[in-house]
Amino acid sequence: MDRPVISFLTDFGPESAPAICRGVMLSIARDAQIVDISHSIRKFAIRDGAYLLWSTVPWLPVAVHVAVVDPGVGTARRPIAIRVQRGDILVGPDNGVLVPAAAALGGATEARAIENRELMLPRISRTFHGRDVFAPVAAHLAMGSPFERVGPVVGLDSLVDLVFPAPSIRDGGLEATVAYVDGFGNIRIHATSDDLAAALGGVDLGRLLNVEFPAEDGGPPAVERAAWASTFGDRPPGAALLYEDSSGLLALAENQGDAARRLGIQGGRRVRIHSASS
Amino acid sequence: MDRPVISFLTDFGPESAPAICRGVMLSIARDAQIVDISHSIRKFAIRDGAYLLWSTVPWLPVAVHVAVVDPGVGTARRPIAIRVQRGDILVGPDNGVLVPAAAALGGATEARAIENRELMLPRISRTFHGRDVFAPVAAHLAMGSPFERVGPVVGLDSLVDLVFPAPSIRDGGLEATVAYVDGFGNIRIHATSDDLAAALGGVDLGRLLNVEFPAEDGGPPAVERAAWASTFGDRPPGAALLYEDSSGLLALAENQGDAARRLGIQGGRRVRIHSASS
Amino acid sequence: MDRPVISFLTDFGPESAPAICRGVMLSIARDAQIVDISHSIRKFAIRDGAYLLWSTVPWLPVAVHVAVVDPGVGTARRPIAIRVQRGDILVGPDNGVLVPAAAALGGATEARAIENRELMLPRISRTFHGRDVFAPVAAHLAMGSPFERVGPVVGLDSLVDLVFPAPSIRDGGLEATVAYVDGFGNIRIHATSDDLAAALGGVDLGRLLNVEFPAEDGGPPAVERAAWASTFGDRPPGAALLYEDSSGLLALAENQGDAARRLGIQGGRRVRIHSASS
Repeated sequence: MDRPVISFLTDFGPESAPAICRGVMLSIARDAQIVDISHSIRKFAIRDGAYLLWSTVPWLPVAVHVAVVDPGVGTARRPIAIRVQRGDILVGPDNGVLVPAAAALGGATEARAIENRELMLPRISRTFHGRDVFAPVAAHLAMGSPFERVGPVVGLDSLVDLVFPAPSIRDGGLEATVAYVDGFGNIRIHATSDDLAAALGGVDLGRLLNVEFPAEDGGPPAVERAAWASTFGDRPPGAALLYEDSSGLLALAENQGDAARRLGIQGGRRVRIHSASS
Repeated sequence: MDRPVISFLTDFGPESAPAICRGVMLSIARDAQIVDISHSIRKFAIRDGAYLLWSTVPWLPVAVHVAVVDPGVGTARRPIAIRVQRGDILVGPDNGVLVPAAAALGGATEARAIENRELMLPRISRTFHGRDVFAPVAAHLAMGSPFERVGPVVGLDSLVDLVFPAPSIRDGGLEATVAYVDGFGNIRIHATSDDLAAALGGVDLGRLLNVEFPAEDGGPPAVERAAWASTFGDRPPGAALLYEDSSGLLALAENQGDAARRLGIQGGRRVRIHSASS
Repeated sequence: MDRPVISFLTDFGPESAPAICRGVMLSIARDAQIVDISHSIRKFAIRDGAYLLWSTVPWLPVAVHVAVVDPGVGTARRPIAIRVQRGDILVGPDNGVLVPAAAALGGATEARAIENRELMLPRISRTFHGRDVFAPVAAHLAMGSPFERVGPVVGLDSLVDLVFPAPSIRDGGLEATVAYVDGFGNIRIHATSDDLAAALGGVDLGRLLNVEFPAEDGGPPAVERAAWASTFGDRPPGAALLYEDSSGLLALAENQGDAARRLGIQGGRRVRIHSASS
C-alpha cells in the first residue's frame, strides 16, 4: 500500500505547534507522508489560508488535507470534513478556509460535522483543536477510517463560504478584487486573463494598462502603469507587468521588486484595469 | 519494522544547517521519519529550547529527540544522551536543554556521556557538533544501536538543569515566572490553574484579575487587567484573558493581539496575579 | 529498494510554492524522501543559492538535488541536469546555481539540457518552472528514469559559472571575497586557513588580526580586530574571532553577536586580512 499523504496548512508560525500536530498524526499514522503547505499564514487570516489551500491542493497527490486557520477555536464554529470529487478529504474548521479548495478538487460530494470523539484525542483543550481534533481525525482518515465515522452529514449549502466578489466589466475596464499578496509582493487578482480580454476587447503582449486601486477612505487611488506580459523576463528590472500567474489569475508585479509594498496594497482591495490609451 | 522517528530542534535558523544534519541522519538511517520541531529558537536561548522541547515531545511517538541549542559548542560542555521512562532517547548538549523534556516523558532512567567516536562523523569540527556528533549519534540510536555504546554512564544528578522558580502564594496572590513568550505574543507562565485557584481561593470564569510584571530596574510595573477565560472566543477582539494553555500552564493573551509586545514582556520576568477586586 | 532522496532548495519563501513542487514530486515519486535545504534564499540571489547548495550537498546521501533560484524564468536560459562523480544528479536553471555543488560532489561528468516534454508537466507556465519543469524532471530521475532521456548533451564548458575571485597574497596579507553572510551574521570568506597561513607565514591560536573591508564607494573601510580562534568558546561574548568554519572556509564572527550587521557587510565585499602587529 502506498504511504498515505496528509497535507498541512496553519497559521501556527515557526514554533512547535505544527510539530506537535505532526507528532499526533504520526502516532496514529506512523508511515504517513506529511506535506507542510505553509505555517506562515498571517494569523487568523482565513481568506489567505483559503487562497493558499485552493492554489496548492490541485498539485498534490490525492490526500487528506488539514487546514487550521481558526480564530474561533473553542467557540461554537463546527469542525468539518469535506469529501471531494477527486477522492481527497478536507479537514478543518467550518469558517470558509476549506470551501475554495473543495471546488478546486472537482467540488464537494459530502460534508460531515466532526463529532466522533473516538477519532479525537482523549482530552480536548479549548485552545488547540489542531492537536486535539483536526490532526487525529485526519490521521485516522488517512489510515482508511471510513468517512462516515467522522460524524453526521451536514448540508453542503450550510458550509461557511467566503465568496470573493466576482469580476465585472464597467466603463470599458475590468473591476475585480485582490485575492492575495504573495511574499514577493506580487498582487494576485481574482480574475482571469479571459475576463481581462473580455473587458478590453482583447489584450496583446506589451499593451500598456492602467491598474488603479481606489482608496478605501475616499483619498487618491494607488495607480500603476503596467505592460501585459507573459513573464518577468519580458520586462526590465523595476518595470511593472500584469500577467497570468501560475494559478491562472491576473497578477500585478514589479520585475525583481515588491509592487505591493510600493503601492501599499493588501488582500481585499478593489482594483480597476483599463487600457492606458483609453 | 516501523520507520524510526527522529525529532529535531535547533536554533540554526532557516538556512542550510538543519538540512546538513538531516542529510547526515539520512545517510545513516535512510528510512528515518525526521520530525522538525523548530529551528527558529532565539539563538543560544537554551531556556526557550528547553521549554519548546518539553512542550512538544509528549505528543510525538517514541523517538530519538535531538536538541541543539549550544552556545558552548567546542568547549568542555558534555554531549549527552538520556534514556527516559517512556522509551525515548534525548540527545544534545548537557546545558539544560534536555532535562525538562526527560521529566515530561516519565523521567530519566539513565544518562551517558557521548564519547564513542565510532558513532560520530570521522572528523569533528569545533563549531558544528549538530552535524558531527549529535546527528550521527541520534541516527545510530534510531537504527537500534545499543544505548550503552554511546559512552560511560553519568549520574542523573550531575546533569545541568535550568530550574524555573516554583510558583508561590504571597499576599493573597500568585507569584510566578514567565516561562516563554510564543510567536503570537501569548505569555506562558510557569504555574498551573490549580496554583492560581489555591492562591485566590478559587477562580471562576469571567473573574477579573490584575496581572502585574514588576520592572527589573525598579521602575513602574507593566500591568494588565485580564478576565479568567477558557478560550479566546470568550473575549472580544483586543481584550485580555488569562487561561490555561494547551500545555496546562497559565497564559496571558490578548484576543487577536500581541500581549507580550504591548506590555514589553520576555521570558524570565516575574509576574504577580491578584484578584482585581482585592 | 531504498527510498529515493530528492533535496530541494529555492528562493520561494515560506508560502505554498515549495509545497506545490513537493506535491508534483510526490505525485510522480510517491515514496521519495524530500529533504528541504532552504527556501529562504534571498530572492534572485543566485550566488547565495550556489553557496548554500555547495556547502550542503556533500552531507546528503546520493540524491537528485533540485535548486531553483531563477530570475530568468521564462526567458531563454536553459534548464539543465548535471550528473556528478559521486552519482548524484543536479537539476535547475543554467545560471550558475548548480556548478559549485557539482564540484563539491567530485565534479561533473555529463550535463544535459532539459528538453524532453514527457518528463515535464503537460502545461508549462512561463513563471513557475519549479513546478512545471524542475520538480517533475527531478522526480522522474529519482524514480530511475535514465539520465539520457532528459535531453541532449551540452558541453560542461558551456555551463554558466559564477566564479568567485580566488584569494591572493598582497602586501604580506590575504585578499579575498565574502562568499556569504549567514543568518547569525557570521561572514564566510572565500579562502581557507591554509591560504591565511601562507599569506601571514603561519597563524597561531589567539593571534590578533586586522580584518578590513574596503568601501565600494571609496569611503573609509569597515575594520575589525579579531583573534584567530578555533571555536566561539575561546572568546568572551561580544569579542570578534576569525576561525575556520564547518565548511573549511575562513569566517569572521562575533561571539553571541552579529558581526555582519554591525560592520555592514554583505556577500561579494572584498576583504583584506593582515597581522595586527604588522
